[in-house]
Amino acid sequence: MPEQRFDPHDLAQMAPRYRARFINSLSGFKSANLVGTVDGDGRTNLSIVSSVFHLGAAPPLMGFIVRPHTVERHTLENLLETGYFTLNAVNHPHYAAAHQTSARYDRDQSEFDACGLEPRFVPGFVAPFVAQSPLRIGLRLVAHQPIALNQTELVIGEVVQVMVDDAAVQEDGYIDLEGLGVVAVSGLDSYHQTARLSRLSYAKPEHPPHRLTLSGQPEEDA
Amino acid sequence: MPEQRFDPHDLAQMAPRYRARFINSLSGFKSANLVGTVDGDGRTNLSIVSSVFHLGAAPPLMGFIVRPHTVERHTLENLLETGYFTLNAVNHPHYAAAHQTSARYDRDQSEFDACGLEPRFVPGFVAPFVAQSPLRIGLRLVAHQPIALNQTELVIGEVVQVMVDDAAVQEDGYIDLEGLGVVAVSGLDSYHQTARLSRLSYAKPEHPPHRLTLSGQPEEDA
Repeated sequence: MPEQRFDPHDLAQMAPRYRARFINSLSGFKSANLVGTVDGDGRTNLSIVSSVFHLGAAPPLMGFIVRPHTVERHTLENLLETGYFTLNAVNHPHYAAAHQTSARYDRDQSEFDACGLEPRFVPGFVAPFVAQSPLRIGLRLVAHQPIALNQTELVIGEVVQVMVDDAAVQEDGYIDLEGLGVVAVSGLDSYHQTARLSRLSYAKPEHPPHRLTLSGQPEEDA
Repeated sequence: MPEQRFDPHDLAQMAPRYRARFINSLSGFKSANLVGTVDGDGRTNLSIVSSVFHLGAAPPLMGFIVRPHTVERHTLENLLETGYFTLNAVNHPHYAAAHQTSARYDRDQSEFDACGLEPRFVPGFVAPFVAQSPLRIGLRLVAHQPIALNQTELVIGEVVQVMVDDAAVQEDGYIDLEGLGVVAVSGLDSYHQTARLSRLSYAKPEHPPHRLTLSGQPEEDA
């Protein structure tokens, strides 16, 4: 297939919106998560982020990137104030509502109300979860550090609560996100369902990987 | 649907492998990228990573997480030595080969050879690209910082080369990853194709988002 090649000059010449869409596409499929926070006055906030990543399992750590000078500012201010936030997986029925949380609402307006999503509170945990989400994670802020190269902030949380639809948790610990209808994001604005190709066995140098069933067992017909 | 709830005690009690699969599933769908590097002696290395994230469009920055005490050690050593690396999107025909790069090969063995992937070099760029990838990105290392909470390292690169199959680049800059057959990852070992739900318009407080075509135009029938 013919290919296009872009060098630093080409990248620098792109119009800002074109470049934003282009560069945002480069990182591949991304997760769709809603970050739920609350401020000291009890005002809730909800914001979609596509930069959540796994940082470690023991302790269980997750990170994401905030742009402090955009709509995500309220999220950052709130989680620094309270020390807690939630991550809520976005599923198929609610992806348009989740996208709408990226609009620039005033601080006084909760994105829960504005976008038709319902906050759910858990006793002893200050930040709001999203009732419609099939996978809800409560995190305690454990680190935040500015990234000196641009005006972004890395936020790291330790997982302290997980609520997930029962049928999705497989016997080996794998969570069936596809069965939950969780969506993936590409670029700035495209949402995708998934179709599993396969789980694959732990890779070893001596032999190629074999296919696993959803529950993590070797596929008989492989 | 009935739900399971996990508190810090439940998380701490999980067997290590179970916890690894469980916690790795929490972040949602992830990108599948092959990191290509070379050492000062010209020995190439290739490693699959699922933690690549967008950091900014101007300058164009991408980051990913390396675990220095695992198989990814060679990747980290190489990119620190040469200052360059590549990110190559994994597509459907090559996902099993890409997964196989996570096996613990010796330093003397290139994962390109061992896994049946072909290095492609571009004049003036030291790190190897993956010929089979439909979206190949060359990056210059601009920052790396340890994450103090665990033994991981955040690597940040500036995009200086992009090679992408021609038909995928839309008129507004969006790259059609789905059309390229790029896969998504969930958990440690599950690979997925995608089916687009829609692109959505830029969110504004006054009105709900409307659907866009692949090329970024309003959908007529919406």
